Amino acid sequence: MSSTVGQVIRCRAAVAWEAGKPLVIEEVEVAPPQKMEVRMKILFTSLCHTDVYFWEAKGQTPLFPRIFGHEAGGIVESVGEGVTDLKPGDHVLPVFTGECKECRHCKSEESNMCDLLRINTDRGVMLNDGKTRFSKNGQPIYHFVGTSTFSEYTVIHVGCVAKINPAAPLDKVCVLSCGISTGLGATLNVAKPKKGSTVAIFGLGAVGLAAAEGARIAGASRIIGVDLNPNRFNEAKKFGVTEFVNPKDHSKPVQEVIAEMTDGGVDRSVECTGNFNAMISAFECVHDGWGVAVLVGVPNKDDAFKTHPMNFLNERTLKGTFFGNYKPRTDLPSVVEKYMNKELELEKFITHQVPFSEINKAFEYMLKGESIRCIITMEN
Amino acid sequence: MSSTVGQVIRCRAAVAWEAGKPLVIEEVEVAPPQKMEVRMKILFTSLCHTDVYFWEAKGQTPLFPRIFGHEAGGIVESVGEGVTDLKPGDHVLPVFTGECKECRHCKSEESNMCDLLRINTDRGVMLNDGKTRFSKNGQPIYHFVGTSTFSEYTVIHVGCVAKINPAAPLDKVCVLSCGISTGLGATLNVAKPKKGSTVAIFGLGAVGLAAAEGARIAGASRIIGVDLNPNRFNEAKKFGVTEFVNPKDHSKPVQEVIAEMTDGGVDRSVECTGNFNAMISAFECVHDGWGVAVLVGVPNKDDAFKTHPMNFLNERTLKGTFFGNYKPRTDLPSVVEKYMNKELELEKFITHQVPFSEINKAFEYMLKGESIRCIITMEN
Ligand SMILES: NC(=O)c1ccc[n+]([C@@H]2O[C@H](COP(=O)([O-])OP(=O)(O)OC[C@H]3O[C@@H](n4cnc5c(N)ncnc54)[C@H](O)[C@@H]3O)[C@@H](O)[C@H]2O)c1
Ligand SMILES: NC(=O)c1ccc[n+]([C@@H]2O[C@H](COP(=O)([O-])OP(=O)(O)OC[C@H]3O[C@@H](n4cnc5c(N)ncnc54)[C@H](O)[C@@H]3O)[C@@H](O)[C@H]2O)c1
Ligand SMILES: [Zn+2]
Ligand SMILES: [Zn+2]
Ligand SMILES: [Zn+2]
Ligand SMILES: [Zn+2]
Repeated sequence: MSSTVGQVIRCRAAVAWEAGKPLVIEEVEVAPPQKMEVRMKILFTSLCHTDVYFWEAKGQTPLFPRIFGHEAGGIVESVGEGVTDLKPGDHVLPVFTGECKECRHCKSEESNMCDLLRINTDRGVMLNDGKTRFSKNGQPIYHFVGTSTFSEYTVIHVGCVAKINPAAPLDKVCVLSCGISTGLGATLNVAKPKKGSTVAIFGLGAVGLAAAEGARIAGASRIIGVDLNPNRFNEAKKFGVTEFVNPKDHSKPVQEVIAEMTDGGVDRSVECTGNFNAMISAFECVHDGWGVAVLVGVPNKDDAFKTHPMNFLNERTLKGTFFGNYKPRTDLPSVVEKYMNKELELEKFITHQVPFSEINKAFEYMLKGESIRCIITMEN
Repeated sequence: MSSTVGQVIRCRAAVAWEAGKPLVIEEVEVAPPQKMEVRMKILFTSLCHTDVYFWEAKGQTPLFPRIFGHEAGGIVESVGEGVTDLKPGDHVLPVFTGECKECRHCKSEESNMCDLLRINTDRGVMLNDGKTRFSKNGQPIYHFVGTSTFSEYTVIHVGCVAKINPAAPLDKVCVLSCGISTGLGATLNVAKPKKGSTVAIFGLGAVGLAAAEGARIAGASRIIGVDLNPNRFNEAKKFGVTEFVNPKDHSKPVQEVIAEMTDGGVDRSVECTGNFNAMISAFECVHDGWGVAVLVGVPNKDDAFKTHPMNFLNERTLKGTFFGNYKPRTDLPSVVEKYMNKELELEKFITHQVPFSEINKAFEYMLKGESIRCIITMEN
């Protein structure tokens, strides 16, 4: 047993004191895990757009000081009361959405939207006592989506922790905590293209590139990448994208361009932009009779999805997905195995690496659109 | 071999000379079947809304004189060149949409929207020569959706003819040609409710009642019928509908009423109204995580389906279907078997029966909303 068990741990964390201001590496206190909680040592973490959105806090209610971060890999330091699935030393990935294994969603084969632990971006405290486990000189520091991985130690509900193969390199598989699994699962679990089929991917950010990787793994014959930013096209070739369409290059709607390229439409499409026009195009570009479109991007509050009902009656299907329909604890270990047996490539998603002390550089790379994923290494 | 093979047959047909005017029983000439065509003797036919719409011709380009009718059962009289699957004496159901078995749709496991023989309500002639097989004193009489079953004999493309068990009573299974299979298949093939699940059916006409029958066969625990017309509720009880909701009785949207009744939404919904507001409600009333909504009703030209994209992202699925996703030739024989082995009840759909000479009564029953299906018996 580690000597820290049951004790407050003092360690370094990158604290966001104010919206949009650089994070500050501080020494913070991390309380021991309570009932159904796990305290883990973070070894590697990476930056996702969602961290940036809530750090900028332009649309959301600001909640500061806060410790961001939700893609990471690490090792269990200690566990709280009632935790039987995990023990100190286990290699784990934290996940922003959980799996209680008790609710109707967790018991359904089809859903991963756990009633208890579904993502909650507004909550900055732990469920057990409604308080934070982080503080500095007695001042509470808020959690973020139950993970707060920009800290050497963090406390997480056991339902948001996936135990993985200890042989897996955490500096690679840490990216499976969020965006990469989201895009990959959207294709493999929801769109489910058959071998030889045609797939369109709308939006070639990290999520869209992971969706393309899913299409490559599924054996798609053509993967058509759609993005408004032509800079995305070169990178996308590494992800198996075979053709590119920039809607700005065409006077007709992109769904018509794709229908012409594919004799009536693609077999599957996956939308990874968050833009509602792209959602409509992604739906309308699938072939009648069998086409399936999957929405992944998070829309704005007042957006509307709009189409003529005949597009459905002609036997098209539209689905949305959350975290690629993966159940975090049940399914993530097998995604890690896909990487271990070289089915899934993760290296190409990792474009940058910085030490924890330079975490603000990771924000710069993402804001400039230079990085897909930047790994932040906790140990100097 | 029948003596009529290769000959013009003179027989009785109910001719629509003008939009909205009573049909007139006339003696007409029916030419022999050409390449890939079948001439069949109709024994029983029934009336569907689609016949009435095109007879009224309020929205559509009028095409008269025309012989309507597309739900029927009969016997092959003779076959044209190239027809190898059928022979005189076979018991068959004609279908308004076909299966060529050669095109991409026919070869796809998922689609029944045959490129060659997909329903075409504007075409009044046969594909082979662009001409009609019906005439009276040399004046051509147009076909309707390739079937024109309001005639003692009719000529149909072989791809629109399903060969069925000769032991099946044609006066019952004739109703499987269109609406009943459409509703049944929408539930069984597309919505696919699991045993014990909750299902909402929007619209309790023949199609919606058949969708309810599908839910009953699938073992749904609750079948919630939704209709604006409370007269539909009593009849619907026979079809396994357990609860009724009339949107007019509530001040809040019906999707909210259903969500309250079902702790968050039904597992499956099937829309059989053709009204776009009902389509939106049918989608929004399914449970997040696993809900599937299926659209069956045919919308108006300018209708739009509109919803917030988050309703999809919360893992709801929306699909449309055409003829219940049944491939007419491949799948209809097994639907007939469902009736033969008493899984499927058809008698309760048949509310009226008239001799051919009184076919206009069938129109009256339907226009008054009194009938579900009225069987028209050809032989006096
Ligand atoms: N559903 C989930 O579980 C989940 C999880 C993580 C991320 N997301 C969402 O997925 C989306 C993509 O995330 P990301 O990190 O890859 O973002 P990103 O910003 O890196 O990539 C989005 C790409 O879409 C392109 N784009 C924008 N509008 C477009 C349009 N109309 N047509 C074509 N391309 C367009 C942009 O140019 C950009 O390259 C976001 O909306 C994010 O919120 C969803
Ligand atoms: N997709 C296909 O292959 C296919 C095949 C046959 C029929 N259809 C379509 O299916 C639909 C139903 O056919 P039917 O013959 O049963 O029609 P019907 O007119 O007998 O029944 C429709 C029912 O819907 C109800 N309704 C109308 N608006 C409603 C609303 N907003 N909310 C709740 N209920 C509402 C009506 O009161 C009526 O009882 C039609 O649109 C028809 O064109 C489709
Ligand atoms: Zn749960
Ligand atoms: Zn993320
Ligand atoms: Zn075909
Ligand atoms: Zn019909």
